[in-house]
Formats: sequence, C-alpha cells, structure tokens
Amino acid sequence: MTELRADPLRPHEQAVETPADFDAGVWFIGRIRTPWTRREECPKRGDSENGPVCRIEIFEPWTPALAGVEEKERLQILYWMHLSRRDAVRQNPNFGGGSIGTFAIRSPLRPNPIASSVVRLLAVEGAVLTVRGLDCLDGTPLIDVKPEFGVFT
Amino acid sequence: MTELRADPLRPHEQAVETPADFDAGVWFIGRIRTPWTRREECPKRGDSENGPVCRIEIFEPWTPALAGVEEKERLQILYWMHLSRRDAVRQNPNFGGGSIGTFAIRSPLRPNPIASSVVRLLAVEGAVLTVRGLDCLDGTPLIDVKPEFGVFT
Repeated sequence: MTELRADPLRPHEQAVETPADFDAGVWFIGRIRTPWTRREECPKRGDSENGPVCRIEIFEPWTPALAGVEEKERLQILYWMHLSRRDAVRQNPNFGGGSIGTFAIRSPLRPNPIASSVVRLLAVEGAVLTVRGLDCLDGTPLIDVKPEFGVFT
Repeated sequence: MTELRADPLRPHEQAVETPADFDAGVWFIGRIRTPWTRREECPKRGDSENGPVCRIEIFEPWTPALAGVEEKERLQILYWMHLSRRDAVRQNPNFGGGSIGTFAIRSPLRPNPIASSVVRLLAVEGAVLTVRGLDCLDGTPLIDVKPEFGVFT
C-alpha cells in the first residue's frame, strides 16, 4: 500500500482524521511517462491537441485487455495521484483569504486521489500507448483506460 | 476490503490471474441511491437531462468537503462497481462470436472497477446531493465528487 502523504496545509485549509481502514484495493495496472518531473511543472489541465506526446505503459497481466483499443480516437485515463495528501476537506488552492471544499475543485488533494483525463490516442505499440492530453507527473501510476464516449466519439 | 467477485465468463472471454497484493487503498466516501436494485435494470449510460432523480449521500468525516459544491451545475462522480469481477481482460458484452479487450469498452468488469459519470446537480441539502445522470445500482459506493469542467461547464 502507498503511504499517506502530508504536505503542509495552507492558511484556511482544513484536514480531517481519516478512517483507519480502507474499503477496497486498487492495482496499479501501468505507468504514465510524461515530460514533467516536479509537481510545479505539471499543467493544470492536459491539452489533447497541442500538449506533448506522452506514453502509457501497461503492465502484465493486463496487456491482453488492450485488444481493440487501437480503433479508439479518444480515451479516458484514470490515474492515481500518488503524492497527494488525502485528508484535506477544505483547500486554498490560490493562497487566497478563504477556502473551498475539496469536492468543489479538481485539486489533486482528495480522499481518493484519482484523476480523470481525456486523451487523444496517437498509436499503440505492444503494451505502450502514445497519447496527447495528459497533465501528470512522470511515473504516475495508471489505474484504468476506457474509451471516451462523450462528445468526442 | 471488498472481496473479488466471479460471475461466470461468457464464450470467448478471458480472465487472468490477478496480482496477490493491492498497490493502494480506497475509502468509500459515500453511497449512491438510485431506483435500480438489480444490475440488469441499470441503464447503459446515465441521462443528465431526463434520467431519474438520484441521491448521493456523503459520509463523515468528508462532509466539510462539500462547501461550494452547490454552485456547480455539473459534477463528475466516481464510484466503485462493487459487484464486478476484476480479472477479465477480454470480454464478450453482447454474447457475440468473439471478444474485445477490457480497455476498449466501458464494461463494469475492469481491473479497478471505477466508473465515471457526469451528472446535473439539482440540490444540496446537508450531506445529500440530488442529481440526474447516474446509471448505477442502488447502494453503490461513492469514491469521488469533482466539478466537471469539460464542455458542460
């Protein structure tokens, strides 16, 4: 299991005591490779048109699940923001004079630090997807890949 | 921890031996209440305009994280499909003559059974959100609420 991180709270932020036990477990099914090695470098949001090309490496035993992915233009990627503290319920993302609830913002600090991005698929080679549209740190754990069936389909 | 489920595989489907240990843990931060009590009743996709009104109940200690949510029109809801087997890498969703990889479809059967839906927020009363657009079973565990900032914003 990953440990819980604890970046310092900012003024007006609030953290809670978290439950002692988890309710379910996640497998890291792959790894995301991006140009960003420090959190401060990451864009706030990925750009599936003009963002840099990134790689998604799928681990065994999950690679057979890629069959047919090559036909999809847009994918929804779920990943685990492994460096985020998980106990913040009110946050002050812009160092302002107040705070806002975690569920009202898309901050990486969340009870379950799961991010969702929609990417454009450029290529599939073996167990590696090449995409545009990610915004996360190099080495971020992958937890799901699904076709996007919203307005982009 | 939730146990791993094992609905029978259909023809042409393939399952794998899953990793012995999980890599991270999830807290169930709430519960979703819908009209559907059997998986066969659930719609394939939620309808945020004309679908039934559903409720999202937030558990303690997470309710302070709702501050500001009432100002959002659209929310992205992540939930845990707790009845799905997690080892299927090729699936035959329509009982056809072949199969397709799990990452190429939005089936609930996934290594990490996390679903993402965009809903329309109707009201916030205490720890309960009233929304349209869900498609899951009554009692489904909630794992995240975020503002949707895509085309719907």
